[in-house]
Amino acid sequence: MKEYTFEDYRNIVENHLMDFIPDVDHKSITLYESMKYSLSAGGKRIRPVLLLATCDFCGGSIEEALPYACALEYIHNYSLIHDDLPCMDNDDLRRGRPTNHKVYGEAMATLAGDGLQAAAFEVMNHDMLLYFDDPAALKKRIRASYEISKGAGCRGMVAGQVADMEAEDKNCSQEMIDYIHLTKTAALIVAAVRAGAQLGNCDPEMLAQLTIYAENLGLAFQICDDILDVIGEEEKMGKKAGMDSINKKATYPALYGLEKSKEHLEELTDTAIEALARYYDNAEVLTKLAKDLEVRGK
Amino acid sequence: MKEYTFEDYRNIVENHLMDFIPDVDHKSITLYESMKYSLSAGGKRIRPVLLLATCDFCGGSIEEALPYACALEYIHNYSLIHDDLPCMDNDDLRRGRPTNHKVYGEAMATLAGDGLQAAAFEVMNHDMLLYFDDPAALKKRIRASYEISKGAGCRGMVAGQVADMEAEDKNCSQEMIDYIHLTKTAALIVAAVRAGAQLGNCDPEMLAQLTIYAENLGLAFQICDDILDVIGEEEKMGKKAGMDSINKKATYPALYGLEKSKEHLEELTDTAIEALARYYDNAEVLTKLAKDLEVRGK
Repeated sequence: MKEYTFEDYRNIVENHLMDFIPDVDHKSITLYESMKYSLSAGGKRIRPVLLLATCDFCGGSIEEALPYACALEYIHNYSLIHDDLPCMDNDDLRRGRPTNHKVYGEAMATLAGDGLQAAAFEVMNHDMLLYFDDPAALKKRIRASYEISKGAGCRGMVAGQVADMEAEDKNCSQEMIDYIHLTKTAALIVAAVRAGAQLGNCDPEMLAQLTIYAENLGLAFQICDDILDVIGEEEKMGKKAGMDSINKKATYPALYGLEKSKEHLEELTDTAIEALARYYDNAEVLTKLAKDLEVRGK
Repeated sequence: MKEYTFEDYRNIVENHLMDFIPDVDHKSITLYESMKYSLSAGGKRIRPVLLLATCDFCGGSIEEALPYACALEYIHNYSLIHDDLPCMDNDDLRRGRPTNHKVYGEAMATLAGDGLQAAAFEVMNHDMLLYFDDPAALKKRIRASYEISKGAGCRGMVAGQVADMEAEDKNCSQEMIDYIHLTKTAALIVAAVRAGAQLGNCDPEMLAQLTIYAENLGLAFQICDDILDVIGEEEKMGKKAGMDSINKKATYPALYGLEKSKEHLEELTDTAIEALARYYDNAEVLTKLAKDLEVRGK
């Protein structure tokens, strides 16, 4: 059996990302173009890759998990489009290209985001219809879709966006920063891993360990981003650096400085890797992903 | 057995509308308040009422259909919040109260809309988890959720918003106006009726007739709104009248004048009622709803 690397999973996502967008009538073709513009901007595709890799790790079918991986990327992309809007972060650049509203206008960008979120759930719901005669397969899919809806919702990503916004300009406790990171960023990473695990054949113990891995990876991911924003490596980020400080965002570097943040990044990465490495000897893609992230933030 | 009226269904929706919003952490409490602000503004609740009434008409359980009815109202409300944003219709007033962004700001209003859409799918997904051991009940729920996702998405409501926006200031064909009305408004009305029917025990013939009913009702609903906008009955509408003309919206009254629009409203209502009355003698709530709408636009 072929062992997939991060790049392999990423290529699968890239090659099939538009496959699940519903047929949009030519009368609303600008909507389709605007959604496609953001989806085709590249990026690490870390969430769908994590979903596929975890499903694979748990003995599931990558092909069958693909609609859920793509749905997750639709949700991530909608959140980026809305996050970049003038009323939110007001960013002109994303992944080295003008942001969606800079090209299509604010109204279309708002609707493209809305359309992408709806598409995510339409894709997953449609996939469930195909497994009506296979109760076991159906249950896996409902669980995966539930994880994604929860991670994206008002206890997950959207709650995090709100808390992040409200924390601007304020002195934040570590508890508050952890809450922001857990919801804004880790919730969708956790959803990716837990959805992938349940689309595979995980047992409860495996699901518990994978959840620890995902939470720590998610926190590490946000701290890594915040470190890069301070170091100012615009090329690695594809967007303007130093914005967190200008916007007075609540971040680890702002609260503890760069060195302590790097230490914390290392701790989180170790905890993530440990959660899997102690129990499984075939979690290489997942542990390497955590390690690579740490190196990127160093 | 008690026969429910429109008001009965509406009261059930009003009394339970907040029940299904996931527990929002106190750290993101403004998000909850902002979502609640819009949900508690009243309105006709026509979509959830239609879902409940259709489910009831098809012999289903109103109580079991309630999460889907509320989810549909969450989606409708998110679309209103986003539609009112300055970059969209820029409305200050909705149902006689300041619009969401006037109270909570544009960023929070955007996120409240996003959170409401996510909540809709989280509610339905969560409900499916409760019926894991009942394949027949599970299938009904997946079908209902699929109808709602399709109606809300980039072939339905969002497509309609885009087409509506792009048609402003242009000379529109009737085909284009019909497309806008079918997607922007009728898609979610059709979703309400088809979801309700499938949560009940509809047969294919019943589903086909109910779909004809819903499409015609949906078109009638939009034309009725556009007539009221011209007649200028702000009280009936809860928002400023005459806005369509100012915004050069593509409407029936703009294309054909008031009299022809009223005639068309009557035709659509007759077709909707006919689709049910010819086959069923117990569709009173559904046919009365169509009739009341027609009278409102006269």
